[in-house]
Amino acid sequence: MKKEQLKPGNMLNPLPVVMVSCGTTEEEYNIITVAWCGTICTDPPMCYISIKPNRYSYNIIKKNKEFVINLTTEKLASITDWCGVRSGEQYNKFKEMNLTAGTASKIKTPIIMESPINLECVVKDIIKLGSHDMFIAEIVSVNINENLMSNETGSINFDDLNLLSFSHGNYYKLGRKIGKFGFSVQKKKKKNNRIDRNKH
Amino acid sequence: MKKEQLKPGNMLNPLPVVMVSCGTTEEEYNIITVAWCGTICTDPPMCYISIKPNRYSYNIIKKNKEFVINLTTEKLASITDWCGVRSGEQYNKFKEMNLTAGTASKIKTPIIMESPINLECVVKDIIKLGSHDMFIAEIVSVNINENLMSNETGSINFDDLNLLSFSHGNYYKLGRKIGKFGFSVQKKKKKNNRIDRNKH
Repeated sequence: MKKEQLKPGNMLNPLPVVMVSCGTTEEEYNIITVAWCGTICTDPPMCYISIKPNRYSYNIIKKNKEFVINLTTEKLASITDWCGVRSGEQYNKFKEMNLTAGTASKIKTPIIMESPINLECVVKDIIKLGSHDMFIAEIVSVNINENLMSNETGSINFDDLNLLSFSHGNYYKLGRKIGKFGFSVQKKKKKNNRIDRNKH
Repeated sequence: MKKEQLKPGNMLNPLPVVMVSCGTTEEEYNIITVAWCGTICTDPPMCYISIKPNRYSYNIIKKNKEFVINLTTEKLASITDWCGVRSGEQYNKFKEMNLTAGTASKIKTPIIMESPINLECVVKDIIKLGSHDMFIAEIVSVNINENLMSNETGSINFDDLNLLSFSHGNYYKLGRKIGKFGFSVQKKKKKNNRIDRNKH
């Protein structure tokens, strides 16, 4: 396949898309939607969000050194988008979108109750990069809808969540599951077993 | 919905999953699959990958200060997984997976020709976090399969790519497109227009 060269750009896709809640008093509460976010460290569990300094939420998070990452779903798609295009300077986003500010367990920033999974984050560093500053954070607590937890195994049922993904300016729901991490080597083992059985 | 608190963990999902190629000589060429990656800045275009220092690719990237992010697709799922569970210490991954090392336009690290989009990255900083180090990089060039470019509009056709996403330990293909960035406010406008028309 012949390749074309494009000028440098952000073509890493697909990305997560999450609603970040911030503010430690009701008057300050706000929500910003970001796709510039990700996991950066397993132990301790750490993540980042990148925000332009001119965004309304920027100073709120910088001041409080905390925020909550609220995962988004197909059902929340329109709200997720709205919180990304509108500014907290003009709107009380919780009120406008009819979202419930719930109490976090370790920090003062509210979790969005309508989101199935909420990650409470404490900012460890802010790195200036250019158009965006990167907020490096430690995840100090995770809140999850009770009905997602399996009573028998203690595992989390992600399959029915319909989480949102963001790719090249569009929101997608996750599609077909292709395999579990490690499936490429497990498949080979099974093939070998079958061959072995046939031999005997 | 009642919430349960879990111990802090990496529950940010879904994530990208990409094959990172590295090495500046054929003997050194290697591929590592990572989901701890993302876009961190729009201008200049920047991204990161996080890698454990004990991974074989870690020292190669640290020494050369460059790597390539190769996007993955449904067709590449098994290869993507294999490059994540096997080590370059034991295997020549390009050879084992029958992948073609193509010439990048701005750096010495090879692009994976079978991947539809390749981001050439130059490392700007390495940040120690804990289990993982974060490689902060600038995207200096983008390579894209010629057939993905629309001749008429110059736009990129992402819809038929079947890009991979990684969520809670599983690979997924992207599913139904829900909307374009900004769709929540465009919908409202349309509704208002209809109401206005009915009034007149």
